[in-house]
Amino acid sequence: MTGSLTRRSGSPVGLHRVLAPAGVLPQQADRLDADPRPWPDEVVLDVRLLNLDAASFRQLRETHGTGDAVRAAVCEIVARRGKMQNPVTGSGGMLLGTVREVGPDSPLGLVVGQRVATLVSLTLTPLRITDGLAGWDGTTEQVPAQGTAVLFGRSIVAVLPDDLPESLALSVLDVCGAPALTDRVVRRRTGQPSVCVLGGGGKSGSLSLAAARAAGAGRLVALVPTEGEAAAVRAAGLADEVVLADARDPVAVADAVGAPVDVTVVCVDVPGCEHGAILATATGGTVVFFSMATSFAAAALGAEGLAADVEMIIGNGFVPGHAQFALDLVRGNSGVRALFEGRERHTPAP
Amino acid sequence: MTGSLTRRSGSPVGLHRVLAPAGVLPQQADRLDADPRPWPDEVVLDVRLLNLDAASFRQLRETHGTGDAVRAAVCEIVARRGKMQNPVTGSGGMLLGTVREVGPDSPLGLVVGQRVATLVSLTLTPLRITDGLAGWDGTTEQVPAQGTAVLFGRSIVAVLPDDLPESLALSVLDVCGAPALTDRVVRRRTGQPSVCVLGGGGKSGSLSLAAARAAGAGRLVALVPTEGEAAAVRAAGLADEVVLADARDPVAVADAVGAPVDVTVVCVDVPGCEHGAILATATGGTVVFFSMATSFAAAALGAEGLAADVEMIIGNGFVPGHAQFALDLVRGNSGVRALFEGRERHTPAP
Repeated sequence: MTGSLTRRSGSPVGLHRVLAPAGVLPQQADRLDADPRPWPDEVVLDVRLLNLDAASFRQLRETHGTGDAVRAAVCEIVARRGKMQNPVTGSGGMLLGTVREVGPDSPLGLVVGQRVATLVSLTLTPLRITDGLAGWDGTTEQVPAQGTAVLFGRSIVAVLPDDLPESLALSVLDVCGAPALTDRVVRRRTGQPSVCVLGGGGKSGSLSLAAARAAGAGRLVALVPTEGEAAAVRAAGLADEVVLADARDPVAVADAVGAPVDVTVVCVDVPGCEHGAILATATGGTVVFFSMATSFAAAALGAEGLAADVEMIIGNGFVPGHAQFALDLVRGNSGVRALFEGRERHTPAP
Repeated sequence: MTGSLTRRSGSPVGLHRVLAPAGVLPQQADRLDADPRPWPDEVVLDVRLLNLDAASFRQLRETHGTGDAVRAAVCEIVARRGKMQNPVTGSGGMLLGTVREVGPDSPLGLVVGQRVATLVSLTLTPLRITDGLAGWDGTTEQVPAQGTAVLFGRSIVAVLPDDLPESLALSVLDVCGAPALTDRVVRRRTGQPSVCVLGGGGKSGSLSLAAARAAGAGRLVALVPTEGEAAAVRAAGLADEVVLADARDPVAVADAVGAPVDVTVVCVDVPGCEHGAILATATGGTVVFFSMATSFAAAALGAEGLAADVEMIIGNGFVPGHAQFALDLVRGNSGVRALFEGRERHTPAP
């Protein structure tokens, strides 16, 4: 309605939205054009909620605290960059919104008024905030917000399900790449591979445990940092063994896990977990790093330094069908659902 | 002979050599015990040559220049830390030496007097320098040195071959993880997978091309930055297609490669090559990142942002048999050997 028909066709990956530097993809860009008028293959959303990446939120909170300061920091990033990409951590998050306008050539199949969650990162999503984040107190990763966001032709988006509470669906969709890739890695091994999830009490961790079990894992170990988390994972029945250790302490991790496992899944959102994951993994095994706090160099040099013949995979947030897969895990696994709902009760609702 | 029998068994990964802080692995340690008396499972070397990591050498030269100042800087680091880990870059290098003493329980199979190269990083190798680096003028990454180094039970070391010049062998061993892992990734695919090597004209890149060919690759593409490199790779006969592009420009990479390939190997040692590699790779394909300049976040979020269902592997510098595999490639492939020897002619000898 507002000019889309006067524009030529855009790039399916959003190159036409990059303002600076020229020629890079939207995620590498310093600045995006967040103009809320769709190009022919785009969709524009009315934003309702941002869900900040855990590493980004932690950095913001540690630097700016809560309240006005952290609100101003996020608004400044979005205004300057045209997207919510934390310049320190490089990470973003996702968002919830309602379809506002659909370009005539959009391949996403969306309809105005649908409630959706973006499954591509905020680091490449053109975004405007119009309410100064007045509804956010700075204490939660979930940030109520008003504004607009843009989806490209090749974006990934999930229509929110009617049978699950929205906040639960959002929590699940936020980490839906982890269980889908865990499923794939476990299934391609023969026999009943042993699996350890570092951070098994968290969102991506508990879903990964459920996915590993459903994929036919044998011995299934959850490593968690506190007795409280251990009790919750035990109560949910997600693992055969629940062990306690600081995931940043390689020797403690190896001692806690005991016999090395075939597949280690890293879902701990703090730096320094690479060496413990490598030590916990058997020769010929696979480590899947989902934590955005993972250091490429620490993993590569660590494996070499430990003479560890393990395959190390960068957790790709996109696996076809990942959203439906994760939602189905929560629908079918009362233990995972209880963990997610328990977490929501301990976190101020947005 | 000198006390090893009075010690209890050490840790195969060298925990017993860590002085500070307590409990970390040798690579993370501030200070190591470089005492040249072997624990029962250790080997001690007489050092002949340090090969500093390129990033470390550049930082030292830019800060300290050449001659006495840079000699003193390196000696000070080694004396203080018990290892040559540049405190600014965090990186190390490798070394050449001769076996001086073998602990009774060493599993490495070495014999006193053998000439060896360490394939674990200097960042975790206990080191003493005894000659003040008097033979080094500070202008080369290769540093003639006298002193001692320690190998742990689980260290990786290659006996230097008699049939290849030492400098050639050192150059090959420095990057020997890349061809071995390329071989493994190509072989586990069915049919004749298409392969593209970004940076196919470099050391790890040319070896990876040769490894891919030997492993049964179909269409084989080398991407290089300059016409000079293209001519060298063509003359060496290492690829079916040699294409030119800046590997940091995703759109240019995708255009140059054309039809996406099954396996992309990244051997370009500059930041920002993640997205081009992802765009060049077909759905269901694999990207192997060997460059230490790779950003975990750029790769993970890039694949998600591009809705790219590709597997991304962190290049592990250790694959069993990698040293012999790389040396055999150079012995059997006159094209690769010519590229390596051409490079040496353009580099000042140590």
